[in-house]
Amino acid sequence: MASHNQAASPRPATVAWAGDAVEILDQTALPGAEVVLRCTTVAEVVDAITRLAVRGAPAIGVAGAYGVALAAQLHSPDSEPGHFAAAVDQLRAARPTAVNLARMVDRAAAHAAAGPGAVLAAAHEIRDQERTASFAMGELGADLLTELAGARPLRVMTICNTGGLASVERGTALAVIQTLHERGMLAEALPLETRPLLQGGRLTTWELARMGAPHRLLVDSAAAYLLSRGAADAVVVGADRIAANGDTANKVGTFALSLGARHAGVPFVVVAPESTIDMDTATGGAIQIEDRGADEVCSFHGVAVSPPGTAAVNPAFDVTPVALVTALVTDRRVVRFDTGATLAATPVGP
Amino acid sequence: MASHNQAASPRPATVAWAGDAVEILDQTALPGAEVVLRCTTVAEVVDAITRLAVRGAPAIGVAGAYGVALAAQLHSPDSEPGHFAAAVDQLRAARPTAVNLARMVDRAAAHAAAGPGAVLAAAHEIRDQERTASFAMGELGADLLTELAGARPLRVMTICNTGGLASVERGTALAVIQTLHERGMLAEALPLETRPLLQGGRLTTWELARMGAPHRLLVDSAAAYLLSRGAADAVVVGADRIAANGDTANKVGTFALSLGARHAGVPFVVVAPESTIDMDTATGGAIQIEDRGADEVCSFHGVAVSPPGTAAVNPAFDVTPVALVTALVTDRRVVRFDTGATLAATPVGP
Repeated sequence: MASHNQAASPRPATVAWAGDAVEILDQTALPGAEVVLRCTTVAEVVDAITRLAVRGAPAIGVAGAYGVALAAQLHSPDSEPGHFAAAVDQLRAARPTAVNLARMVDRAAAHAAAGPGAVLAAAHEIRDQERTASFAMGELGADLLTELAGARPLRVMTICNTGGLASVERGTALAVIQTLHERGMLAEALPLETRPLLQGGRLTTWELARMGAPHRLLVDSAAAYLLSRGAADAVVVGADRIAANGDTANKVGTFALSLGARHAGVPFVVVAPESTIDMDTATGGAIQIEDRGADEVCSFHGVAVSPPGTAAVNPAFDVTPVALVTALVTDRRVVRFDTGATLAATPVGP
Repeated sequence: MASHNQAASPRPATVAWAGDAVEILDQTALPGAEVVLRCTTVAEVVDAITRLAVRGAPAIGVAGAYGVALAAQLHSPDSEPGHFAAAVDQLRAARPTAVNLARMVDRAAAHAAAGPGAVLAAAHEIRDQERTASFAMGELGADLLTELAGARPLRVMTICNTGGLASVERGTALAVIQTLHERGMLAEALPLETRPLLQGGRLTTWELARMGAPHRLLVDSAAAYLLSRGAADAVVVGADRIAANGDTANKVGTFALSLGARHAGVPFVVVAPESTIDMDTATGGAIQIEDRGADEVCSFHGVAVSPPGTAAVNPAFDVTPVALVTALVTDRRVVRFDTGATLAATPVGP
């Protein structure tokens, strides 16, 4: 596997097909260096997914689909069916908890009988659909923020990384900020650093700088206070899972941010694709929250920040009750919880 | 200046007089190592204060007073009045914004005419008064929490470092947790790590471990969520300044924590000495909040965590409106804001 440093513009793609390789921007090297991994074997794609060089459900789904296209090119499903099937299994299992990965790998692999070209076409289609969804969320979200907060350049606060690095391009909540910026309607983005893994400080700042959007970073605990002093016009966040009643599970800190927005009277908007909605889960109370253990809290970049053996409580996500959510923006609709709308009663667009 | 590592019990004193030296526990080395600085010159005491080896208004006040006692021993105010006066000036200016330091230095220096023994006695008195105040806050606060949350072992959340490291012994909010622990009424302390400087993760955990109190560390952004899931029975915090109406300036993150406590219906108690109350400031809106610049947010222990040149907004403190404060506990009274009490109308005890 080759890698090369691409510090100069244009921004490297999160995941791209390069004819005989899958190119993946190594997010573990950001923001220090822009390293593009050139994966010429399936094992290298699996490794990149496993060690979080690529992360975010849509992005790893696309990486997995391109991995299948690479497998079809290297190991003809006709002449080497065993090799091809094993490669597909390895890709599907690279991140066992990410449902999206398995789904996209299977979708690409279903075209194997039609030859490597058909598999690659399916992978491109998956990428294009993710890209189209991100553009739609950006447009719908920017329209909504302008409606809610005013037709003027806005100051928008956000948490974690929800941009093109977590998707193919643009992303979810950060797509809304990018669209506002492209419209000349972004005064300032205010990303939270997002402890413990600092995706906001490491990745969102990098994406904002790359798009030339004005921004200032803050520690998570300053968000509610800055909102109370009028520092932002709106808050946009992504989602990991949305229950049928609109309760939203997302990166830990989202709930605290929603309390700050409510206290300040600032719109709080969730941006996520339709696939994030789980109508089989009635409310947020039923969503299991994973505790990721003490290491992430007690050390930082390998440096201990608390005494040896310190215990920690480290919920990876939290749940924001729908009562604190102004609206949900998906790729196909806007659900205005603030005016009494519900997921069940709001039609899904084309 | 000599220094020695004291990893074994008992816990080294934050500041102590050693006959011919001022001993200061170097907080910049915590929690990695327990290093006691033995300062045998005034310049060494000044240096320890300047570089935050000792921090917290009461603690640096006591260090400054002992520095004056050392100066009086080394440079007789009678035979070397110039040397003595210069030493006092240097101590007073070691942290220009800390009013307490100048006040305690002057109070000790006022006894110079009566000889080195009188200066030392004044410094001991200052230390003893701080210690007495901490014990009183611990007792009053523990009584209040038991009254508010129940006569059973409690789970208590707190932010920043408000313990003996910031004072002489015990401190303010952490003194309440220590008193509960000594009474067998502490189920668990839940300290927030307190970005950007991580005083909770580095120092409060160390103090809790030293007192043998059960505790789990959390990132700041998890606090409101954990409160909403019933993880704590009460929240106690310190204060940097309290306005006449009860609005409270404290470490950034305190306001967000108060919102979380209110949403969860959990008591939120401020613990601070009477000297923190500023009746000349009508409300929190009049309190200036210092922005400490981007470096603390954008790097950690010298490691860059965001792209070079990233801008940040970094308020050092925030203001919690009195409407979100259940009660204030000082060394001389309890003010129950939740029942309509006010600072002006609540008598100050002996």
